[in-house]
Amino acid sequence: MPQGKPLVVPDDGLTTRQRRNQPVFAVHTGDGKGKSTAAFGLALRGWNQGWRIGVFQFVKSAKWRIGEQTVLERLGRLHQETGEGGPVEWHKMGSGWSWSRRKGSTEDHAADAAEGWAEIKRRLTEQTHDLLILDEFTYPIHWGWVDVEDVVTALRGRPGRQHVIITGRRAAPELLEAADLVTEMAKVKHPMDAGRKGQRGIEW
Amino acid sequence: MPQGKPLVVPDDGLTTRQRRNQPVFAVHTGDGKGKSTAAFGLALRGWNQGWRIGVFQFVKSAKWRIGEQTVLERLGRLHQETGEGGPVEWHKMGSGWSWSRRKGSTEDHAADAAEGWAEIKRRLTEQTHDLLILDEFTYPIHWGWVDVEDVVTALRGRPGRQHVIITGRRAAPELLEAADLVTEMAKVKHPMDAGRKGQRGIEW
Repeated sequence: MPQGKPLVVPDDGLTTRQRRNQPVFAVHTGDGKGKSTAAFGLALRGWNQGWRIGVFQFVKSAKWRIGEQTVLERLGRLHQETGEGGPVEWHKMGSGWSWSRRKGSTEDHAADAAEGWAEIKRRLTEQTHDLLILDEFTYPIHWGWVDVEDVVTALRGRPGRQHVIITGRRAAPELLEAADLVTEMAKVKHPMDAGRKGQRGIEW
Repeated sequence: MPQGKPLVVPDDGLTTRQRRNQPVFAVHTGDGKGKSTAAFGLALRGWNQGWRIGVFQFVKSAKWRIGEQTVLERLGRLHQETGEGGPVEWHKMGSGWSWSRRKGSTEDHAADAAEGWAEIKRRLTEQTHDLLILDEFTYPIHWGWVDVEDVVTALRGRPGRQHVIITGRRAAPELLEAADLVTEMAKVKHPMDAGRKGQRGIEW
């Protein structure tokens, strides 16, 4: 029901159109599956709208390349070749970010996480992307490597129309408070409970 | 952690490899967002593995074309052109299925749903797809248009290695019981609660 009626019409002086065009800050959290996958699914939609997509993976190893990265980067090349959709950038923290001179020269994940966040703040100021996916960004916040108040301030103050999705377990209450949309993915049943290991195509 | 250790090793006489290669039947349910989006995100991964993807949308209007359909069908054409990834079929119930002679000639949604399920059963027998997404299939089951025992029997007995994802609210207990993987997407906070309407790129 994409054209659904809002449940409440707020007294904020905005028109429906102004309200509709507000950028969204979403959090996907919980112990279940689908937090990142649903975010990358939204990137499909955004790409199709011609949005400039930026993905920033904060935890997954740089050696680990998930299927979504291959496909979204392929869609980014398709954009360059044919003009369809939008451009795609995909950055992984791993041992140093792809934009960094320190690449591979550090094992300091706290410094890497802080550097990643500093770069994202710059991009928010410059409005580099229309959709930013900060994948597993809840962890560096949880571990105190990135200050949650700084994140909330930067997100609340971001200019223009930049949609942001943060994924990961243990999302800080300040993030949930600031978010427009929070979905909790809860595990009801998982094949690993029945002794199965992850498999290609399903887990990555 | 895609290479995670299983929590229990079952006494089922199977090797880890045999267990790993078992096809997955997953259910995405709950009142929150991301049920379908996470399924389409998994289709990205599957496509990247060369899987034959089949999407069957049971409720959304045939007039309504979501971004994921455009992009996944584009990836299907890319497969035809370059051999990358796998083939993609996307079918919508709407007023009659695309394969049906009755297309547009009926408003009998119960008959349409039954016809869709009959076609899916044929495809399961013929192993037409490697990943089948039965989007919003919980509703025709909930409304009694499709018999849940028939669904469970067909899914339990499906040959080969066919992954199946069923999405939608109010999943029948029999489905949850039969599924290997159940995720509940719970709404914690939604912009429509704050009086915003759905917007392009986020809702569709």
